[in-house]
Amino acid sequence: MAGNTFGDIFRVTTWGESHGTAVGATIDGCPPSLDLTPEIIQRDLDRRRPGTGGAASPRQEPDRVEILSGVFEHKTTGTPISLAIFNKDAHSKSYDHLRDIFRPGHGDITYLKKYGIRDHRGGGRASARETAARVAAGAVARLLLTRHGIEVSAYTIALGDICAAERDMDIIGQNKLCCPDAKAARRMEEKIKATRSRGDTLGGIVEIRTRNCPPGLGEPVFDKLDGALAGALMSIGAVKGVEIGAGFAAAAHTGSQNNDSITPTGFASNRSGGILAGISNGDDIVARVAVKPIPSIGRQQDTINLAGEAVTIRIGGRHDISAIPRIIPVCEAMVCLTLADFLLRQQAIQDSGMARIAGDDCR
Amino acid sequence: MAGNTFGDIFRVTTWGESHGTAVGATIDGCPPSLDLTPEIIQRDLDRRRPGTGGAASPRQEPDRVEILSGVFEHKTTGTPISLAIFNKDAHSKSYDHLRDIFRPGHGDITYLKKYGIRDHRGGGRASARETAARVAAGAVARLLLTRHGIEVSAYTIALGDICAAERDMDIIGQNKLCCPDAKAARRMEEKIKATRSRGDTLGGIVEIRTRNCPPGLGEPVFDKLDGALAGALMSIGAVKGVEIGAGFAAAAHTGSQNNDSITPTGFASNRSGGILAGISNGDDIVARVAVKPIPSIGRQQDTINLAGEAVTIRIGGRHDISAIPRIIPVCEAMVCLTLADFLLRQQAIQDSGMARIAGDDCR
Amino acid sequence: MAGNTFGDIFRVTTWGESHGTAVGATIDGCPPSLDLTPEIIQRDLDRRRPGTGGAASPRQEPDRVEILSGVFEHKTTGTPISLAIFNKDAHSKSYDHLRDIFRPGHGDITYLKKYGIRDHRGGGRASARETAARVAAGAVARLLLTRHGIEVSAYTIALGDICAAERDMDIIGQNKLCCPDAKAARRMEEKIKATRSRGDTLGGIVEIRTRNCPPGLGEPVFDKLDGALAGALMSIGAVKGVEIGAGFAAAAHTGSQNNDSITPTGFASNRSGGILAGISNGDDIVARVAVKPIPSIGRQQDTINLAGEAVTIRIGGRHDISAIPRIIPVCEAMVCLTLADFLLRQQAIQDSGMARIAGDDCR
Amino acid sequence: MAGNTFGDIFRVTTWGESHGTAVGATIDGCPPSLDLTPEIIQRDLDRRRPGTGGAASPRQEPDRVEILSGVFEHKTTGTPISLAIFNKDAHSKSYDHLRDIFRPGHGDITYLKKYGIRDHRGGGRASARETAARVAAGAVARLLLTRHGIEVSAYTIALGDICAAERDMDIIGQNKLCCPDAKAARRMEEKIKATRSRGDTLGGIVEIRTRNCPPGLGEPVFDKLDGALAGALMSIGAVKGVEIGAGFAAAAHTGSQNNDSITPTGFASNRSGGILAGISNGDDIVARVAVKPIPSIGRQQDTINLAGEAVTIRIGGRHDISAIPRIIPVCEAMVCLTLADFLLRQQAIQDSGMARIAGDDCR
Repeated sequence: MAGNTFGDIFRVTTWGESHGTAVGATIDGCPPSLDLTPEIIQRDLDRRRPGTGGAASPRQEPDRVEILSGVFEHKTTGTPISLAIFNKDAHSKSYDHLRDIFRPGHGDITYLKKYGIRDHRGGGRASARETAARVAAGAVARLLLTRHGIEVSAYTIALGDICAAERDMDIIGQNKLCCPDAKAARRMEEKIKATRSRGDTLGGIVEIRTRNCPPGLGEPVFDKLDGALAGALMSIGAVKGVEIGAGFAAAAHTGSQNNDSITPTGFASNRSGGILAGISNGDDIVARVAVKPIPSIGRQQDTINLAGEAVTIRIGGRHDISAIPRIIPVCEAMVCLTLADFLLRQQAIQDSGMARIAGDDCR
Repeated sequence: MAGNTFGDIFRVTTWGESHGTAVGATIDGCPPSLDLTPEIIQRDLDRRRPGTGGAASPRQEPDRVEILSGVFEHKTTGTPISLAIFNKDAHSKSYDHLRDIFRPGHGDITYLKKYGIRDHRGGGRASARETAARVAAGAVARLLLTRHGIEVSAYTIALGDICAAERDMDIIGQNKLCCPDAKAARRMEEKIKATRSRGDTLGGIVEIRTRNCPPGLGEPVFDKLDGALAGALMSIGAVKGVEIGAGFAAAAHTGSQNNDSITPTGFASNRSGGILAGISNGDDIVARVAVKPIPSIGRQQDTINLAGEAVTIRIGGRHDISAIPRIIPVCEAMVCLTLADFLLRQQAIQDSGMARIAGDDCR
Repeated sequence: MAGNTFGDIFRVTTWGESHGTAVGATIDGCPPSLDLTPEIIQRDLDRRRPGTGGAASPRQEPDRVEILSGVFEHKTTGTPISLAIFNKDAHSKSYDHLRDIFRPGHGDITYLKKYGIRDHRGGGRASARETAARVAAGAVARLLLTRHGIEVSAYTIALGDICAAERDMDIIGQNKLCCPDAKAARRMEEKIKATRSRGDTLGGIVEIRTRNCPPGLGEPVFDKLDGALAGALMSIGAVKGVEIGAGFAAAAHTGSQNNDSITPTGFASNRSGGILAGISNGDDIVARVAVKPIPSIGRQQDTINLAGEAVTIRIGGRHDISAIPRIIPVCEAMVCLTLADFLLRQQAIQDSGMARIAGDDCR
Repeated sequence: MAGNTFGDIFRVTTWGESHGTAVGATIDGCPPSLDLTPEIIQRDLDRRRPGTGGAASPRQEPDRVEILSGVFEHKTTGTPISLAIFNKDAHSKSYDHLRDIFRPGHGDITYLKKYGIRDHRGGGRASARETAARVAAGAVARLLLTRHGIEVSAYTIALGDICAAERDMDIIGQNKLCCPDAKAARRMEEKIKATRSRGDTLGGIVEIRTRNCPPGLGEPVFDKLDGALAGALMSIGAVKGVEIGAGFAAAAHTGSQNNDSITPTGFASNRSGGILAGISNGDDIVARVAVKPIPSIGRQQDTINLAGEAVTIRIGGRHDISAIPRIIPVCEAMVCLTLADFLLRQQAIQDSGMARIAGDDCR
């Protein structure tokens, strides 16, 4: 209700401020018997930690996850899994000069309007640090998906105005930007350098692809799988747009261009992005998100202070040039959390007489 | 949980199949003392009914709403409001020839995979007819918003490859396509004619603008206002993409281009689309949705039958050329339902000592 | 949230006022492929209708249920099931003299305080008529339980100060009070006559027994099965107490008296009422509810009017002497709804590698 | 959904096993600006800690609460409040001999049946230790109630077969059993001694009284205030019965005995327990719970092992003789959590034109 909980059955509540004691997540509804260790979670966490990727700030946050409950002898028990990441490198003092000033593009002004209280230290819940808890919880969700053979991976297809022309998945792990186009990746790194030197920041586009998702996931009519994915991905702070399959391009298609023909061996194309009428159809689920440039720029900006007076601000400190590539594991986490929940929701309504995951045998 | 319910406090459950007895909605959590009559709901319903707009099919469905509970002497009482629209013009026989064939771009194949059961009559819950119930419920939500001075309106900014170059709000009511650019509207109508003659269909883009939304609505971190809007709008069957404010264009902006400066009289621009860190900032809330072309086209398509064999299909019958403009009141309804819910959620946490809707007095 | 919805996965929302157009229920989350006809629901409805049982009023309400959605060719489809019972015999005029007076023991005073609005016609949502919708929805839940072999039945064990000394289940259907003790049943009928002649009313105790419930249902720690049953049963208007197994008697037991020993063939006794640590243990689930006497009595009572002035009231009209036995199918319905929901919740977390309903094979 | 979350708006999720790293609670939806320090929580925690009260075990668990998020400069901020109590004195080794044996009256057998996994260490989530997290969260809820002048207090009215004949609230703090009858309290302490010497345990009855609750709290029809309280209280492991107001005694009343007359200055009696039709009426809310004897007794009992073979068990170790009085702050916590949630739910639907908490001015 208050917005810090995600999912209906596989349900995650995150907590913690960027410059408080810790951030964490409580997972309620994780099935028993999954093989869970801190190392499994750490793997995903390490991909989003500060200092990762070509666009990252030099802040060094170890981000060590601790499992406080819900696991016994390396197995989930079905009880709530409490995860905590204690903050080590939080210089809240470095925000003291911002105590009375609203930062353009940030949530400090809206948080104050909402709650009537101001925690000026580095973004609080609105900080990207909050996503560490999402990634930790997402790693547990991914475990459940892996048991069902489902794979979720994301990669950069645009940074600023540079777009990936290819989708060579083998290249993703070989460049800092996780881009499936080696040539574009090089140009992106150059772009970052140039942008940093100007005290500016960059946006981009991330694509998230899910393979081997069984048909039948998604709940009509409000909890369609595409609706849920859109809500989940747009809940990431930096995301300003989401599209599924052909997405905005579909607006200019005709029906005969846009429909995916069906053949005895499957769909002839995948403009639907793997989802029909809100339910997975067995094809790859393809989503893309528009990532806005990081609002903490090194240039002078016009703003106001708490008294409502015009002032200028220049934000220094340790900031990334782009949310890309650190946002990639966050996007994956949100897709994993969504799918894990829908997987359990589908299991709930499938009765003994039916296939476990519908669709295996009903055609 | 099963996906037919929307909202946490202002909570709507819709029900009904396109070719069943009726469609309807139950609203639980509507505050008391709103002045509600069937006529108020009918006004919005009439805007989405078949036969409306230049792109519509000739099917004539009166869509008369009945209020079965929750209203006493023209006032809401705080108890559940049950709304029903009985189906009058449902020719389910006309779907008999589709009993064994999957229609490309439709949900019949995924519904079967999900539920193991096939209701072949015209789309069932996946039919656009389901949205009549959303519009009816949305009209009640709009009543609540109106009490707070909030206005929600949507309009067409693209049909196929024709885009509106202007935003003349006075024009919207003067053309069948609800387009704020008279010249574009004329070209859109011609495009529809040409497309109809080819047995094809069209997509487009709708923009939804909310005026006078108070700051403070939206719940961090998963139930951000933009996240909730994205989920709500993407849950409309034909929608394949959602963006807020600058949206996908923000991906190519730099931070210095994309940040909205703050001045003593408000934000200097509105690239954020009225939402910062998931919370409304008092500016207009601007969202856009990509609408895919209607999949029921009059041309021959490749598909399979229940036995998995390759067959061809040509869909006749009474179908629209585009979901635009009938989708416009549906988009408005989803935004109204989202905002009504967030308004009540905000009221819940505001204690006696605080302003009723935060932000009025806390700066 | 607003209280008219019950259940998490098998989720029911009821609506309708006693003297409005209709009462009804929308079930969202019912699994597909259940054989559902109006007759199946009608059977349970007929057991609670006015004019049933020795303690009933002569009001004759046919209570015909209509299924408006969610069923195709006599099978549930997995989509929402909308049920409506149109009011036929509602004499709202007969309540006109109560327009300004609060009835002792009734909810009219608290509804006004809550909503600031007064619907004086016969109780509105607080009327026992609201339970017709519960019973209708409960009949669908019972269908799901029956598929799993689970049986729920309730019976009268006390009326006023007359208690059943025996539990002869074969007798229940043979007396109007559904009492498993023939001798007590006769004394109860005499008691009703005497009470009616004095213009007074009676309370009593109902016991609800569930047979063949598999072990493993119930969710620690807040959604324990006993907690959920207590909440469900206490939500029936006339119920003022709930106990499970030994219940209040357990307060005076020692641990050695109260523990159920475990043997290779099962529990040696059932003081736990079939629930341990909030989870079903495979034994009969036994709950009892205290039913208060109907507050609409034929004797003069002190009360106040809307102006806050002292007045007296004597309620005439067609009222029952006791909520027993008509409350019996309502109690069964609430238990059926609770168990159906927990059954699906358990299915949700059981993964492919596990038994479908846990406990079958894990000892 | 998985049962570890309580409340809709003021929403608490607890986590942690009795012999794991820690237990804790995450509160999502607490309003901003409450004055919260660890000391405030500690006060309630100290009342339930082991070693408290005449019936307690000598285990000394400091139970120090830490606030990990959601509080800034001693004020709640509106963001999630994470509370943790690290386990210090957990001798899980002392449970090794129970690794293969089911303890009568305990949840180890049902947990295994539910989850297919066995954590044999001292009860896990089914341990009374879980309630420490409830009490911690309840202390925060109490803060919110206090702001509204609402007071919740519980006390012992029966231990075994010894009942309190008086309700002298000033006495409660003066005896270890928190009993409002000094004479009964002395007899209870003697009873405990005698029972301990026999290796046995005791049950009892606790009454919970809420003063100054405004009218209008509670949601018809399923989330009635009495229904919610019953569910909340029955979710405490040791509770087997709940009654409101006259409770089970109402079953033997006639309507003329049971109705509370209404006078210009209020209700003439309070047999309703402060709740009419599920909504608070402004009178004291009175609930009573039946507490079963602690199942860990020092006497030999029949049970089975994991192989299903008959064995005997004698439980040693540090166990309480009765859950009373340590359960008292737990009962209070559950009532506080319930009322805090309903208070916010009521605020949500009250619109600007209405009184803040309904009922103040609407008669």
